[in-house]
Amino acid sequence: MSPKSVVVTGSNRGLGFGLVQQFLKDPNVQHVIATARDVDKATALKGICDPRLHILQLSLGSDESIANFAEKVSEIVGESGLTLLINNAAVMLPYVTKQKPDRKVVLDLFESNTIGPMMLTQSLVPLIIKASKRQEGDTLSVSRGAIINIASEFLGSISENTSGSGEYKAMAYRMTKCAVNQFTKTLSIDLKDDHILTAGICPGMVQTDMSKGKGQLTIEESSSQILAAFNKLGATHNGGYFRRDLSIIPY
Amino acid sequence: MSPKSVVVTGSNRGLGFGLVQQFLKDPNVQHVIATARDVDKATALKGICDPRLHILQLSLGSDESIANFAEKVSEIVGESGLTLLINNAAVMLPYVTKQKPDRKVVLDLFESNTIGPMMLTQSLVPLIIKASKRQEGDTLSVSRGAIINIASEFLGSISENTSGSGEYKAMAYRMTKCAVNQFTKTLSIDLKDDHILTAGICPGMVQTDMSKGKGQLTIEESSSQILAAFNKLGATHNGGYFRRDLSIIPY
Repeated sequence: MSPKSVVVTGSNRGLGFGLVQQFLKDPNVQHVIATARDVDKATALKGICDPRLHILQLSLGSDESIANFAEKVSEIVGESGLTLLINNAAVMLPYVTKQKPDRKVVLDLFESNTIGPMMLTQSLVPLIIKASKRQEGDTLSVSRGAIINIASEFLGSISENTSGSGEYKAMAYRMTKCAVNQFTKTLSIDLKDDHILTAGICPGMVQTDMSKGKGQLTIEESSSQILAAFNKLGATHNGGYFRRDLSIIPY
Repeated sequence: MSPKSVVVTGSNRGLGFGLVQQFLKDPNVQHVIATARDVDKATALKGICDPRLHILQLSLGSDESIANFAEKVSEIVGESGLTLLINNAAVMLPYVTKQKPDRKVVLDLFESNTIGPMMLTQSLVPLIIKASKRQEGDTLSVSRGAIINIASEFLGSISENTSGSGEYKAMAYRMTKCAVNQFTKTLSIDLKDDHILTAGICPGMVQTDMSKGKGQLTIEESSSQILAAFNKLGATHNGGYFRRDLSIIPY
């Protein structure tokens, strides 16, 4: 169940970096395309010595950057197409109901967490369809053609929202992640006939900069669990959602 | 169960105009504040002769317009505060997975349907708290202090999403409305201690310009049903959602 090629966004640190490391442990993976906003500063990625790793510049806020990136991915994967896209990059900015309205903060969050990943995904869909077409039958899997959106069960779900803006000051972040869940569900329907698997996955609370190190899982634990979960993904999970405990619920 | 004062956004046509007409039928309503992006062109609203109707300019994309609007609302409602805000204004622009990515269209949709209503709501929350504080006890109602977001069960809900971008080309619209549902749920928690009721309401498929006249309900039928539903809203519905058939589900 190895993807031939994978793009992981926001992968110079945190969970993205952990996922890159996990994919490189798998000898069947041919290309790991890691993105960073500033490649010069991507010291963690640059410290990895593996010819299968490609470090590419990507700013999700820039259409030009996305177009250049898609072009380079196309050159790397060639006729095989792109097997797997993992939309991992996201930012967290505090925002609460009872504060002075601040459109810029909210727009920044939607651009980074929702709209940027949407623009990128649409730009890469032709390459993912190319990969998917190389297999016959109705199977859906991460080794055929897939889009995985890193989601948040606790902060993205409406029904799980019991604390509002809360201690994480997460009003706007919650909204961006909820919109991503609707994006995932819509993609899963729109791309079903192309045999592209689309799912959200909640990595749990991971010890990253975003969680200020407060998670239950180390980056290695979470990223290895996510790769193990990928092997379980199939048609019945399309449009669905992996919870923190990696049980699957439909959206 | 009459609100003393109500703001209805986007009310020169469609459901917003229907809601304005319904509120003016109620002699206990003292102020109906109707908004239009261009007051000069708000001919439908201007055709109503009722001293309780205030027609105010509001562009949800402009912070300055929102600030001016909030100031005028404050002058109108005075020490009584604002009882009810109905976020009705929304736009529908077609957008599908398999199209050239178009950031501007998606940003416009999020600005109009999600971020603009959020900025407005935050600007009016102090006036709604003022109204709510005039009553004692823990009661929640549209006659004490409330925020109602016009929602879409069919296009906003993730679990009800079975057609993806579909015939309405609604990928981006679905995402904006889903984010509004998360906004509603978050507000309902954040403002519970201020005794402000927050709920979403799905008007059903109404015969408006947006639905190209194809709805099952006339504007009058839908708007009168919504006002009737308001009377049923209470603490147990806080953060919840009225379906098309006006049964209530929790988010």
